[in-house]
Amino acid sequence: MRNVQRKLSIARGERPAELLFKNANLVNVLSGEIYRTNVAVDDGRVIALGEYEAAQVIDLNGSYLAPSLIDGHFHVESSMLTAPEFARAVVPHGTGAVVIDPHEYANVLGLDGIRYVLESSKNLPLDFFIMLPSCVPATAFETAGARLTADDLKLMIADERIAGVAELMNYPGVYLGVESELEKIHAGKGKNIDGHAPGLTGKNLNAYVLAGVRSDHESTEIAEAREKSRLGMHILLREGSTERNLATLVGLVNSNNAMNCSFATDDKLAGDLVSEGHIDHSVRKSIKAGLPPVTAFQIATINTARHYRLRNFGAIAPRFWADFIVFDDLQNPVVRQTYKKGILVAENGKYIAAQPTIVPQPRSTMNLRYDSSKDLDVKVEHRSKMRIIEIVPNQIVTKEIIETPRTENGRVVADMGRDILKLVVVERHRATGNVGVGFVRGFKLKSGALGSTVAHDAHNVVVVGTNDSDIAAAIAELQKLQGGQVAVANGAVKAELALPIAGLVSDRPLDEVIQRISDLNAAARALGCELEAPFMALSFLSLSPIPELKLTDQGLIDAVHLRKTSLFVP
Amino acid sequence: MRNVQRKLSIARGERPAELLFKNANLVNVLSGEIYRTNVAVDDGRVIALGEYEAAQVIDLNGSYLAPSLIDGHFHVESSMLTAPEFARAVVPHGTGAVVIDPHEYANVLGLDGIRYVLESSKNLPLDFFIMLPSCVPATAFETAGARLTADDLKLMIADERIAGVAELMNYPGVYLGVESELEKIHAGKGKNIDGHAPGLTGKNLNAYVLAGVRSDHESTEIAEAREKSRLGMHILLREGSTERNLATLVGLVNSNNAMNCSFATDDKLAGDLVSEGHIDHSVRKSIKAGLPPVTAFQIATINTARHYRLRNFGAIAPRFWADFIVFDDLQNPVVRQTYKKGILVAENGKYIAAQPTIVPQPRSTMNLRYDSSKDLDVKVEHRSKMRIIEIVPNQIVTKEIIETPRTENGRVVADMGRDILKLVVVERHRATGNVGVGFVRGFKLKSGALGSTVAHDAHNVVVVGTNDSDIAAAIAELQKLQGGQVAVANGAVKAELALPIAGLVSDRPLDEVIQRISDLNAAARALGCELEAPFMALSFLSLSPIPELKLTDQGLIDAVHLRKTSLFVP
Repeated sequence: MRNVQRKLSIARGERPAELLFKNANLVNVLSGEIYRTNVAVDDGRVIALGEYEAAQVIDLNGSYLAPSLIDGHFHVESSMLTAPEFARAVVPHGTGAVVIDPHEYANVLGLDGIRYVLESSKNLPLDFFIMLPSCVPATAFETAGARLTADDLKLMIADERIAGVAELMNYPGVYLGVESELEKIHAGKGKNIDGHAPGLTGKNLNAYVLAGVRSDHESTEIAEAREKSRLGMHILLREGSTERNLATLVGLVNSNNAMNCSFATDDKLAGDLVSEGHIDHSVRKSIKAGLPPVTAFQIATINTARHYRLRNFGAIAPRFWADFIVFDDLQNPVVRQTYKKGILVAENGKYIAAQPTIVPQPRSTMNLRYDSSKDLDVKVEHRSKMRIIEIVPNQIVTKEIIETPRTENGRVVADMGRDILKLVVVERHRATGNVGVGFVRGFKLKSGALGSTVAHDAHNVVVVGTNDSDIAAAIAELQKLQGGQVAVANGAVKAELALPIAGLVSDRPLDEVIQRISDLNAAARALGCELEAPFMALSFLSLSPIPELKLTDQGLIDAVHLRKTSLFVP
Repeated sequence: MRNVQRKLSIARGERPAELLFKNANLVNVLSGEIYRTNVAVDDGRVIALGEYEAAQVIDLNGSYLAPSLIDGHFHVESSMLTAPEFARAVVPHGTGAVVIDPHEYANVLGLDGIRYVLESSKNLPLDFFIMLPSCVPATAFETAGARLTADDLKLMIADERIAGVAELMNYPGVYLGVESELEKIHAGKGKNIDGHAPGLTGKNLNAYVLAGVRSDHESTEIAEAREKSRLGMHILLREGSTERNLATLVGLVNSNNAMNCSFATDDKLAGDLVSEGHIDHSVRKSIKAGLPPVTAFQIATINTARHYRLRNFGAIAPRFWADFIVFDDLQNPVVRQTYKKGILVAENGKYIAAQPTIVPQPRSTMNLRYDSSKDLDVKVEHRSKMRIIEIVPNQIVTKEIIETPRTENGRVVADMGRDILKLVVVERHRATGNVGVGFVRGFKLKSGALGSTVAHDAHNVVVVGTNDSDIAAAIAELQKLQGGQVAVANGAVKAELALPIAGLVSDRPLDEVIQRISDLNAAARALGCELEAPFMALSFLSLSPIPELKLTDQGLIDAVHLRKTSLFVP
């Protein structure tokens, strides 16, 4: 903070400010009003509201001036963008701060992953606050790159950019009082503790809250969100790429409870962020659904800043950072300008911030050990039926179905006629040699293979394919790329996106990432796939906490009873 | 906290709670609703809401259950009660926590006074949170018992019952950037910084807020409060014994800004607390003025708990303290029962909590050095006119008037015919021998004298009298009582209240204090005084920061220009 005396003298009107936003229709989220005034800014902060002199005057001519928007819960890895490129995507949409849970980074890189996020997100026109991942690894049924205990979280909790402990996804562990989970909550004492409790109600929800969890972003129905709100949970209204709960949950919000609500996206793809928007989309959607604009902006700004204790964020008043957005239509706010600490960083959709210093990438994470000549083999056992994972389009749950295998030379092979494709998961963190092989219905590939190193939550290599040769080619290409996503056919790469940062995130610019994702989807469609988001579907097939049947590097997982199961039905 | 596992198992419904509040109409200040449910309590905390078993069931039969009320800003010395006797006054009115500024204790006893408040307010059915006094002494024009610098505040700020730095009454010092004031704000970093800025507006208010002040309780007009709210100040709606701003300010409160409002009393006499009530009075008054009951209760509970970060206070939800009130009429809530950590502590106006251990009183504070045979003398100077303080009834401001003195034997004496009485201030902290003598109009005493060791802000001995002999008798009696308030006539004590704790607070029970205050007022009336609160009027005559003319131990103070002045007009 530059000289306090200087700032006070500006506030007293004794010397001019650097900057005056004149004739603003100020969205004052503190007093809950919108009215005409001027905002004086100096050294990146709001100094005063009212009649002031300044070296530079920006006449807003009655345009609306609101605080920059805040995302209350986001996994930046879902955009597959580095922090600077993510900023390029969302700053033009008016985002000024994000509360992120680097859960995927942590699953691959542990504390190093969190450190990388802290470092790579500095000095951007977007402030990152970090919740420490609480569920690494997600389960014991897959091999992740790291394991974080309460003692690990304690090492980092004091950092001023750490806002608390991230979503406690192991909610049964919490309400049942498993010591390791309670210790993680304790590690976050004095900061925030985020929840994740889809569908949890009644007594177990009471126990979950009693244990210290303060928020939830998983409600899909009003009754569920209301019960959580009644128990004191801060409600994050989620609107991401696939999980879209805002239209429903906005019905819960009223003037008596709005202060306990925030907007969040959870997961959102780069392309959606650019085309649809970020928190600005949630603001528009809420207003269209009938929320008063001031309330929508409070939910998008100060409520989140207060809940997560983001000092000097979320409002336009003396001492707050001069993080502003400018727009013209209160009923349909489309961000025309974004300011960060008083500096114009985006205008008319164009990002105009300075390029940050690039920080070194973390270490390589593609440590595979497998033998393509035999690890992909599935020998027919003396049984007639096998378990198959069936995809439920646009959901992370799957079904278990039982089918007769197609065999060739004593080996089970893909059967494109019945849409039964081979699914392979290769451990990539510790070179354990673990390879899980199973079968999946839903991709409808007629040839080739699709592979990804984004595979929740352990992010091992996952490949679906019509033949072993293309599966092996996909794995080889992913190894070469140091992680990524590929579409392969007849031994040739049809499309690819390298994700060399933890096997999760691209080192390429925003536009190129969006183009390559588009190319990958087109390539998958060309191979016969009809899914809207085939690589996303692929990435959830290893997520062992979610029913019914999943495949990890350790084999098929009965995700209903959380136990390993066999490919062949006994 | 008793075994966490035990509590979680109660929440899960696996074992009974100690206590169940059944069929409550719950005032849920978190979700902003009122609805029928049950509340399970164990080990002093809320465990769960819903259907539960318990060892003891309290069937509320549809009565309302709300969180106990919180006073956001109070000087407990204004009640002249010890913390336990103050609890006796307000707990039956449903108060569960108070945020206090022990400004008067600190002026007399310094850090020892704050330590005494911390210690004497433990283990009561009322939680005390303390803001560290920021203006000790109030000015350089009177001799106080202590001086607190930022370094002193830093010694205590970390205590978990210290909620921040109390009202920065030297608001010009703050907005002008005086280093000692900025350092006090800095000492409170990470906790709360209370303001006090009556009538401050515009640029200087912006500077005051910019410096770090976060609240204000001095607004008397809506426009003033609105301006402060727009700058982000938390607005404390004050309703005390004399300062009654609620009726006006409630007009500011609406659903967009209510979350940034709290109730406070600032100063309230023991008798008023008992007869009129405390924060419950503010709740009733707000509802009568049209505020929705849920909003009034949010302002009276969770808003204050959040602003001052009173952990686990202000709501009824899992993990919160089981601090409840029970009442039957939502439109006119009269507290029928008060619970503290699940224990019934007041019912039907009767206080039924256990007596706490009495803590040792702080040291004696009556260190006078004066000579009654000459220090009260005012020799006539060769001028014809003198300055006289004129009381403005029910205000802390005074007027300066100029009158011709009445003289006897070359000395100025009181003139009951024109209501010009002698006013004497004797320093009592350091035995400096300082004695200030002046004259005052407004008391209308026909005989005798009134004396007090409550005399804002330095709390020296102040006596108004019709003759030197009774003035001396009053001082002698106050010395004997080790501080207090007295009415004396013809050398005889007519009524008195001993205030041996810092010369500010009685060691007697609530009822006796109220009775003696009543007797003192009756005695003053019998001597001819027509003021409603003569001892309060007396106590403000030394308050040198408040215009126009005051008398301290250092003599007459021109409180408009903040400088010493002479009795005789030059």
